[in-house]
Amino acid sequence: MSTSAAAPDQPPFPVRFGILGCATIARKVSRAMLLAPGAAVAAVASRSEDKARLFAADNGLPAAGLRLHGSYEALLDDPDVDAVYVPLPTSLHVRWATAAAARGKHVLLEKPTALCAADLDAILAACDAAGVQFMDSTMWMHHPRTAKMREVVDDKDAIGDIKVINSMFSFRANEDFLQNDIRVKPDLDALGVLGDVGWYCIRAILWAVDYELPKTVISLRDPVKNRSGVLIACGATLYWADGKTATFNCSFLANLTMDITLVGTNGTLHVTDFAIPYEEKSAEFSVASKSNFAELHIGWDPLPSKHVVTTDLPQEVLMVQEFSRLVQNIRDAGGKPEGKWPAITRKTQVVLDAVKASIDKGSEPVEVAN
Amino acid sequence: MSTSAAAPDQPPFPVRFGILGCATIARKVSRAMLLAPGAAVAAVASRSEDKARLFAADNGLPAAGLRLHGSYEALLDDPDVDAVYVPLPTSLHVRWATAAAARGKHVLLEKPTALCAADLDAILAACDAAGVQFMDSTMWMHHPRTAKMREVVDDKDAIGDIKVINSMFSFRANEDFLQNDIRVKPDLDALGVLGDVGWYCIRAILWAVDYELPKTVISLRDPVKNRSGVLIACGATLYWADGKTATFNCSFLANLTMDITLVGTNGTLHVTDFAIPYEEKSAEFSVASKSNFAELHIGWDPLPSKHVVTTDLPQEVLMVQEFSRLVQNIRDAGGKPEGKWPAITRKTQVVLDAVKASIDKGSEPVEVAN
Repeated sequence: MSTSAAAPDQPPFPVRFGILGCATIARKVSRAMLLAPGAAVAAVASRSEDKARLFAADNGLPAAGLRLHGSYEALLDDPDVDAVYVPLPTSLHVRWATAAAARGKHVLLEKPTALCAADLDAILAACDAAGVQFMDSTMWMHHPRTAKMREVVDDKDAIGDIKVINSMFSFRANEDFLQNDIRVKPDLDALGVLGDVGWYCIRAILWAVDYELPKTVISLRDPVKNRSGVLIACGATLYWADGKTATFNCSFLANLTMDITLVGTNGTLHVTDFAIPYEEKSAEFSVASKSNFAELHIGWDPLPSKHVVTTDLPQEVLMVQEFSRLVQNIRDAGGKPEGKWPAITRKTQVVLDAVKASIDKGSEPVEVAN
Repeated sequence: MSTSAAAPDQPPFPVRFGILGCATIARKVSRAMLLAPGAAVAAVASRSEDKARLFAADNGLPAAGLRLHGSYEALLDDPDVDAVYVPLPTSLHVRWATAAAARGKHVLLEKPTALCAADLDAILAACDAAGVQFMDSTMWMHHPRTAKMREVVDDKDAIGDIKVINSMFSFRANEDFLQNDIRVKPDLDALGVLGDVGWYCIRAILWAVDYELPKTVISLRDPVKNRSGVLIACGATLYWADGKTATFNCSFLANLTMDITLVGTNGTLHVTDFAIPYEEKSAEFSVASKSNFAELHIGWDPLPSKHVVTTDLPQEVLMVQEFSRLVQNIRDAGGKPEGKWPAITRKTQVVLDAVKASIDKGSEPVEVAN
């Protein structure tokens, strides 16, 4: 590797990303790499060099020093790539994420990370063996609003013990999407809506309970599937041993909606744009704490409060920045991979597996594996 | 009856209400009767005349012409009472609501209206036989915000076909409530939280779908009961033949929360204080319609819009006013009772029955009776 560690008084040498595949989502993440301190786009791979060139041009990637590869294999052979971002269809994740890790590349992997927890475990094992950082590309985890909400949720006085969580993520896909998008194709993204926006709902619920796994999940009845059997709309209720419950709905057939509602003994949190805030630089949530009925039950006292969190850098930039910081710590300072991120990914995938199993069993209860 | 019909150029003679029992909620409704055009408090009954006197004094009921009765029976015998408001414990509803109807009194009945649909049917049959108006005391139905939300929900362009509804109503009861309140006593309000705040959730869901009954309901697992077996926290998912689903949670153990979230093919409605608005004179809801991701998925386009509805009269006053208008129409103009209100009540009670049955059967699916 031609990496040279930065001198103490110089900014660290940027993490050189290779983009493995030119999916639509890669446009957003390549922009984030251009904007993120500590990151640079070093290479783009597609199934042809022309496609990679087109992607680079369309997304304003500086030509100087940028390598365009006509195959994923070629990018993985590129010695001047520290980390790969993998936005390939889910069915290709095991193959390419493990291959990347085996070449010593750190792995930023699009969600859903795998078709099942066993596949994810193969990826995580490869990263572990290679000593590379793994992170899934769940951007909202990195928004400062999420950190602020974490503080509130962790404040036992403000929220107390969580009792009920609801999460919803839907968008109204057009006919072209429903016919042709990767996310409705059984050979590419067999998890359909559950793997796509359902991933966010499950992550949101796990985030809310600080990643305590539920004991049992039961899918909602009558999930909607397309002709190929791929899930288009579904949901589930999750049950914890202490009586907490969470319900989520995800759909390609309903208007864009992104809710987390969390009700604890002492307080309630509402956010209605959790995964992608309405606007890039400012995001809100509201908290009602120790709410009482006003005298005669003609109002509330106190009223809920609105929290506004601003950010100069969009959440996907903050994600790339955080991933790059972890990679630099390993590459330049002999640090170890941060285990928090793969652990969160795995829990999300394990719950997703249980929901899928419950759907496949006609909404029978399924115990969550550990 | 000593009623005299008003001359055409005079305001209609007010409806003379008798308050049958001095429950806490009667304080709010007696205030509403003082404020509502077309209504007057004519009599108060309690188990002793002293209690009735105390209630009248505490709630500023004008002494002139007010009769205080030491028994419910005595109030029903009062010829100068047109209508009764019945805030008694649910287990007493059949007895006193049917008795009131049999004496020709119109009936404004607190929710839950009965312990089961069969009991409600006895009440409705008595009202029907006597030709008196029946209405349940679900106040938020009468808020102008509800009418405005109705317009939005009925606008197929704005909301489209409803796919998913969530409703939540909880409040954190204190120890005294959990030990002593009527609503946790098996002999008084055997439906517990389901009959109390769960009533509102079920009504909200039915309201959202314009009172189309679901086909099947399945209660959430692990409902919380007190030592007497009365429900303290529970929930259910409702399924319609066309694939719509609705989930609700109700609880005495979690912070005050009152949500309706409704997601259709074209739009999403959020309201977080549906049953009792945060403030008396102004209430909000928000609508996101035809929401798209902004370019690169870095925001939403268009943004949701906030709707603010003001009202001079609080919702409970509007309820009393509407009930009084219907009574005046019958009493003074030979009109017939408005069938819409008992029909809505009955559907709410039928769904509530099904949820209770599912809970009693350990969360088995229960078909909703028609």
